[in-house]
Amino acid sequence: MRLRNKPWADDFIKENHHITELSPLSHKGSWKDLFENHQPIHLEIGTGKGQFIANMAKQHPDINFIGMERVKNVIVGAIRKVDAAYVRNVRLINENAKDLRDFFAQNEIDQIYLNFSDPWPKNRHEKRRLTFHTFLEQYEDILRPDGEIVLKTDNQKFFEYSLVSFSQYGMKLEEVTLDLHAVEDPLNVMTEYEEKFSEKGQRIYRCRVRFS
Amino acid sequence: MRLRNKPWADDFIKENHHITELSPLSHKGSWKDLFENHQPIHLEIGTGKGQFIANMAKQHPDINFIGMERVKNVIVGAIRKVDAAYVRNVRLINENAKDLRDFFAQNEIDQIYLNFSDPWPKNRHEKRRLTFHTFLEQYEDILRPDGEIVLKTDNQKFFEYSLVSFSQYGMKLEEVTLDLHAVEDPLNVMTEYEEKFSEKGQRIYRCRVRFS
Repeated sequence: MRLRNKPWADDFIKENHHITELSPLSHKGSWKDLFENHQPIHLEIGTGKGQFIANMAKQHPDINFIGMERVKNVIVGAIRKVDAAYVRNVRLINENAKDLRDFFAQNEIDQIYLNFSDPWPKNRHEKRRLTFHTFLEQYEDILRPDGEIVLKTDNQKFFEYSLVSFSQYGMKLEEVTLDLHAVEDPLNVMTEYEEKFSEKGQRIYRCRVRFS
Repeated sequence: MRLRNKPWADDFIKENHHITELSPLSHKGSWKDLFENHQPIHLEIGTGKGQFIANMAKQHPDINFIGMERVKNVIVGAIRKVDAAYVRNVRLINENAKDLRDFFAQNEIDQIYLNFSDPWPKNRHEKRRLTFHTFLEQYEDILRPDGEIVLKTDNQKFFEYSLVSFSQYGMKLEEVTLDLHAVEDPLNVMTEYEEKFSEKGQRIYRCRVRFS
């Protein structure tokens, strides 16, 4: 989709610096200090308009959430959602997830969410998929050894690719669900995409994987 | 389904001893001698009425196929299919797959097929599923180190279970296909079940896995 340009986005992000962390590189290794507690930290890569992270934060006040979203015109939506949720356990980062090791120290993250990531269907774009092995290397570094990656997608090919990629990297599948909404899961928090696709009767796939 | 009793099945199996191997235990380690060549040996566990193995044998004369089927009244159908296919590269075994190591020596098998295995959906029957770890141990022993297991099923829960079970055992996924018949694969040989389910529009799942 083409995004409408929002010339006020820069200012809006700056005004909401209690939600969007403006100098995220400086917190590498000390995110717990920023949250002023020792709760586990969960990272969502590609936070989009923020429905997932805002609702997760409400449902789990005992967990801190960090959401990365590189598109300025999209993250403003997430800021609004988080603001409206009246939660103090969320920080957003408006950066391209080039190398996560610039932002987080080894083992600093307890769980990673990949929600409806861009499937990059063309073979020549394989390297851009967030489950390509170069990304898995980054996740392995910043995630605590028994921390989980939870992936959800509606894209069958991307899911197939990701299962094989995780496995070839030596990761272990903890759970695979091939039709998430066929069974009611009261704890599942839906993203905007998930709600839309699910209403259309499309399947949502989910897996949980670990490095050890 | 309730199977009609076939009192003539015993005699029929004995008459067709060129297809059904009557003393399979005695060939452990020397199946190549029985086939009188050094072609790879592929094993199907649960051969059913034999459509898959008969057509595979026709399509791949350079491979030897062994099919195990414990139900007497079912294997007679497979004997007929193999007989009608005019192939010399198939042997059937009418035995319960209790321990495959009684029938095959280490590394004697080059590939294993699990086609539409009984999903045993109840938790208390988990041990009977052909992808339970005790079966994986047997497969690991009889399969050559880089040999593949190819699993096909229409049962979503059994497929989910099997992916996790393979992975937890330390096996690597080589391929995952979540809707086999959405794409035409001219090399795919269908089982009777597969044909029926696929015609009804049900999804067929497939994966290929290896121990190393």
